[in-house]
This record gives sequence, C-alpha cells and structure tokens, in this order.
Amino acid sequence: MALIVQKYGGTSVGSVERIQAVARRVAKWRRHGHDVVVVVSAMSGETNRLIALAKSIQADPDPRELDVIASTGEQVTIGLASMALLELGVRARSYTGAQVRVLTDDAHTKARILAIDEERLRADLQAGIVPVVAGFQGVERDGSITTLGRGGSDTTGVALAAALHADECQIYTDVDGVYTTDPRIEPQARRLKTITVEEMLEMASLGSKVLQIRSVEFAGKYRVPLRVISSLTDPDLPIEEEANSGTLITFEEDENMEQAIISGIAFARDEAKLTVMGVPDRPGIAYAILGPIADAKIDVDMIIQNASVDGNTDFSFTVPRGDFAKATAILETVKEHMSARAIVGDNRICKVSMVGVGMRSHVGIASKMFRTLAEEGINIQMISTSEIKISVVVDEKYLELAVRVLHKAFDLDQESA
Amino acid sequence: MALIVQKYGGTSVGSVERIQAVARRVAKWRRHGHDVVVVVSAMSGETNRLIALAKSIQADPDPRELDVIASTGEQVTIGLASMALLELGVRARSYTGAQVRVLTDDAHTKARILAIDEERLRADLQAGIVPVVAGFQGVERDGSITTLGRGGSDTTGVALAAALHADECQIYTDVDGVYTTDPRIEPQARRLKTITVEEMLEMASLGSKVLQIRSVEFAGKYRVPLRVISSLTDPDLPIEEEANSGTLITFEEDENMEQAIISGIAFARDEAKLTVMGVPDRPGIAYAILGPIADAKIDVDMIIQNASVDGNTDFSFTVPRGDFAKATAILETVKEHMSARAIVGDNRICKVSMVGVGMRSHVGIASKMFRTLAEEGINIQMISTSEIKISVVVDEKYLELAVRVLHKAFDLDQESA
Repeated sequence: MALIVQKYGGTSVGSVERIQAVARRVAKWRRHGHDVVVVVSAMSGETNRLIALAKSIQADPDPRELDVIASTGEQVTIGLASMALLELGVRARSYTGAQVRVLTDDAHTKARILAIDEERLRADLQAGIVPVVAGFQGVERDGSITTLGRGGSDTTGVALAAALHADECQIYTDVDGVYTTDPRIEPQARRLKTITVEEMLEMASLGSKVLQIRSVEFAGKYRVPLRVISSLTDPDLPIEEEANSGTLITFEEDENMEQAIISGIAFARDEAKLTVMGVPDRPGIAYAILGPIADAKIDVDMIIQNASVDGNTDFSFTVPRGDFAKATAILETVKEHMSARAIVGDNRICKVSMVGVGMRSHVGIASKMFRTLAEEGINIQMISTSEIKISVVVDEKYLELAVRVLHKAFDLDQESA
Repeated sequence: MALIVQKYGGTSVGSVERIQAVARRVAKWRRHGHDVVVVVSAMSGETNRLIALAKSIQADPDPRELDVIASTGEQVTIGLASMALLELGVRARSYTGAQVRVLTDDAHTKARILAIDEERLRADLQAGIVPVVAGFQGVERDGSITTLGRGGSDTTGVALAAALHADECQIYTDVDGVYTTDPRIEPQARRLKTITVEEMLEMASLGSKVLQIRSVEFAGKYRVPLRVISSLTDPDLPIEEEANSGTLITFEEDENMEQAIISGIAFARDEAKLTVMGVPDRPGIAYAILGPIADAKIDVDMIIQNASVDGNTDFSFTVPRGDFAKATAILETVKEHMSARAIVGDNRICKVSMVGVGMRSHVGIASKMFRTLAEEGINIQMISTSEIKISVVVDEKYLELAVRVLHKAFDLDQESA
C-alpha cells in the first residue's frame, strides 16, 4: 500500500464532468488501499479570466492583491473536487495553500516554497481522509496569500510528495508521457517508460513542455519519483495498467546499464542567430556584447566564440526570433565601440538537440549526429554541447528532416534493450 | 476625524466601474482625514454562480466545502477593490475573513461570529492604510473557512465597527434609506432620517428588506450607529451631504421626545390564513395544531386564539402562501384527533403593520388605525399587537388602499415636528 500524491492540471479539472472523472480515479486508488493526497489546479481558463479581471482595474496589478484574486481559482476546484469525492462515498477534505500551510517567500506571483507543514495532511491520511490541496499557492510569513507562478501546481505536488515522503508523485495531464520527440513531427516517436531528471530538464528547457521545470528540479533535489500520466484515459482503467503508464522520471544512479544512450530529440523553433564578426579577442569583449542585450531583457540561449585568428574573433549567439530586430539594433549601436568588422544575423534558424545521459559513457555520438545530418545535406551553423546533450543550429527549413533522420539513425523508434 | 466602517453590497461592487466608484468614494473620506475600513460583498450574481457550480457536483453540497467555494466571491472583490484604491493613490490592503481573523462557530453556511481580532486592522489604520475586508465569511477554530449566510456582509460590517469602536457603520446599498413605506405603493412615502433599532427590526421582519436582521440586532446589542446610504449617488458628492444622507439607525434611549409616534408601515403579501374552528379549549391544543405544522418546516407567523365560547374556541394562524396547501392537508389529517368542527382557510390575504416606538407612550393608535380602515370599508380579519407594532390581516385586494389611507391618516408624508 503506497502513499501517492496525484496532481491534476487545469484541463484535467476543466469541467464538472472532468472533476467527476478525477474523483472516480482517486476512488479507484483508495479502493486498492493506497493513501492518496490530491493536488488540483484551477479549472482551465479560470486563472486567465481572473488575471484579466484584475488588469481591468490595474494595468500592472499590485502583486499581493493579484495573488488574492488569482488564488481563488484553485480554491473553487478543491471544494468541487472534495464534493465529487464525498459524492462517491470517499472521505475528503479541502485545503488552501494557507491552510496546509505551504510557507513561501514574499515574492508575490512567483513565490518559492520554503517549508510545508504536513502534519494535518498526515492526520487526515491516518483517519482515512483524502486531503485535496490547492496547487499553485501558499502563504507568506505574515499570512498573505502567495502564488508560485504559472505551472506552480506541479511544484506543489512534488513539494507535498517530498514533505510526506510519498512513494510517487503522479502528474495527471493531457499528454500520456514524455516522447522521444514530438509525435506530430515524427510519427514513429515512442513514449519513454523512464527518463532521468537531468534528461527531463534538458528536454523541458529545450521545448518539450510537459512539466514545469521547477517541479522537475524539485523532484531531483528531494528524490521524489515523479510520473507523468494521462488523465484522458478511462478513470476505471485497471489500476496495475495505470500505475505503469506514462513516463517515470528517475534518478540516474538508479538506472541499469542497459539505459539507452540517447533518450530523445528536442527542438526549438523561432530562434534567431546574431554574429559579431572580427572583434578583437580581448578580455571583456563578451560582456561588451551581451551586457546591452541583457539590459534590454532579451534572453540569450547558445553562445559561441570561435578560436581567435590573428587577434580577431567571431562571436555568435541565439535569441528568440521576436527579439531579433531589437538585438540587431542594439549591436549596431555598440559596433563602433567594439571595433567590430560587421554584424550579421539570420532569423530563419532552429535548434535541434539530442539528449541522453548515456552520452557520458559513449563516444562517437556527436560524430554520428554530424554525419547523419551531412548525409542529408543539412549544414550545421552552430554547435553547443553539455555533458548529456548536443545542440546544433540549422536552417529552419531542415527542422522536420533533421529530427526524423536523427530519430531513425539512433533507433529511437525501437524499444531499448 | 472619525473612524468609519463602510460596507458595500453586491450591486455596489457589481462591475469594474462600480468598484472604481467605491474607490473614489473611499478616497474622498480619506482626503477629509477619516479612518476608513471597507467591507465588501461578492460582485452581484457571483455567489449564486458559485453555489450553482457546487450543486452541479452535489445536489446537497457538503457545507464545509460549499463555504470554501462560496467564500471566493468576496475574496475576488477585496483584491479588486484594494487595487482600485491603490490606483487612486490610496494605500490599501485586503483581508479575507480568516486573515482578519473573524472567528465563528462551526455552523457552515450560516455561521455566527464569536470574536474579531482587530489588531491588524488597527495597525493598518495607524499606518494610514485602508483595510479592505471580505464580508460574509470567517474562520472556525480549526482553520476551516465559514460563511455567515445570505446578507452576512452587513453583519461583518457591524461586527468590525463594534470591535473597532467605530463612530459609524455605513451600509452602502442600492436604496437611499428606510422609508415610511414602500414608495412604489405610496408615492408620498418619505425617507426617515432616523429609525430606532427596534423599529428597524419590526420593519425588516415585516418585509422591508433593507438590512439583514441579524446585523441590526448586532448593532443594537453593541450600540453601533448604523447608517443606510445609497451607493448610486455621485461618488464625488460633497462629504457633508453624504454624511447626513440615508437613514441612521439609533437607540431609543437617545431619542428626544419629539419622536414621531409612528415611523412606518410595513406589509407582507403572499400570506395565507388557516383557522381551526370549534376545538375544545384545553391545555395542549395549540401544540396539537402547530406541532405537525412545525414538523413540516412551515413558518408560522401570526397566531391568534379567540376567547373560549362554551368550552370551544377558534384557533387561527398565518403561513406563507406557498405552504397553504400543505398546511391545509396536515390540518385535515389531525382534525379528527383534535375534535375540531372544521378547517377553513383563505390564501388571498395580506398583512399590514404600523411600527413605532411612540406607541408605547401614546394611546389610541390602534383605534385610530381600525377606524381609518373601517371608513374605507376594509374588513379586519386578524389583529396582532406588540409593544411597538400593530398588525392586521386584510383581504389582499385592499393592500395598497390600506397602506395609503394609513400613511395619510398618520401624517407619515409630513416631516415630524
């Protein structure tokens, strides 16, 4: 008999019928003797409605008061979900973040969890009650309501699981797991039964939006087994089947040696590349280029500086495509000051990344990747690597082709041995 | 410089524009140096929407969870109203019932206030901050959210005013005060500048729905000066004019001797009368008749038992018209057991009541009332009196006529001397 934290997102509680389905699912886990803590988001669309209402009063809403308003979304859902459970004869009891108490810092609208008082939840579990907790919200030391920012309900789920030493934190959502790549691009994409926290972080930050990054970091830090499961299946699906569905996010050290070398291929569209050509290769030049970009609050992703040729070097970096014009204009204004030869840019690029912890112990992954792309005539414009990832920038017209040939070349459509 | 509690009801905060008008009004009072605590209801329609949502999950919603859901209505309004004040440069800070802390008993959906911790509000006032408090809600000892039942926001306002020893509790609403009678029936009806708590209780319970009865009782008990004011006037109305507008609910002992004898005429439509004829005049007969009625949860209003004639008596009472058929059926089933001669009923009646503390010291009010009605040929079917009220039951077709002739006969259209 396990202790499970189940988190249901906005679409999973998006209507009365969906909430009733959540209750049936939870009731099933209870019938099998498991202790369950439920975490819910606001009904889909509700948080946006509340924020729009707030903005109709203050274009730039006071953060403390915005949290007071936004937190009502989850408060309604915990009441409804508890009622749906009671209606099925399952004892249940709702808790706001403040009632639990999920203590956070005072950074309203993007607060961080400092501590969780799990005492009441534990007492409920011992009494056979399912606590239904509002995700996304907490309370600061002075009693003010805080919210954790978008996707914060995942973090609530993981934090509760950590505090309760739960056996698993199940994130029910509208996808059935993490895939080797986006199935809309490669129909042979395969659901991963497991993926490590580190791989998940690389996949997520590279554009596979399944879980909020912070919740994955949290799961890694507190070693909470985290599982992404579909909430779209029949709520009466046999429990053994459901328990093994989705994707389990694990810790590398636990993995056996049969682990696949590559777990997946992530990609990001809508990127742009800027190159400052022929700048003197001297200390401080990177800051001279990127300082003004950062001041303009433009996110810089890949940064590459080539080896110096006769004292001059080329400095390249990528930015979101929407910031391309602004970044180009900034560089033009600082060009003289840097004694740069020229600014060149390309806003029709994309980034394709291969992710896998197996890279650490296997050589030749990069060269196989580059050969595969070369055989298709795909020119690589930039390369960046980390311990468990290789990213390349290519012309955006090659995105789908690059993903498909790499998926095939690395046998990602095959179940790993 | 006074300390004022201002309570704004659902229609007064029914839209973004209305909330902005509330903020302008509060800002005006602040500019004149007054300390203001604001209490708000949910935006009109919102509580009904939330309750309907809850009932779509549970036909008979769990009271604790219903309160969790229903209380979000006011929580949204306190955030919006605080933002509207901040937008005008007025320092403001929202509080839920739990944050204040408005401690209540555990009677969910109809909780009673036990204590108010006014410390934080007082600290805010001293710091020049306007606390904006959610009406209608509180918290029970275990931290669960409670609500006070319909109209409970008035009670919150009065309770806060009592705890803070405020100079006045102003109830802003969509009427501009308490009238001598309903102006839709008697256009000469006059707004009362003052009315005593006791008169107000009689007027309210008799059908003049301006304030929640419990809030008036509370005001009387804790001697909180209570003023009903319109929120429909221009928010920039000169403050001296606004401060003296509406109707002030006072305490009898404070009144001067020039107090009008009669303050107003209340009435209730949709009443029905039942008479059990010829029952033996013996102990327990009233219970034998009304016990089954009470068991069926039918509200009984006037009860009259005539003097006994040769050991038999007639027993009459009134019920809401909607319960007439049910009450008649119940009496028919117990008729034999009571040895009653007959059950007769009339569901086309109404009740007209004259209310005034001056009755205590003036004789002849009742006979003048009866004469006035007789002169118009209006037959009186039942009479019931209390210290400060005389009620008569008449055929419903006479309702408007009775109200108008009494209003005239007692000079209610004239300002009292």
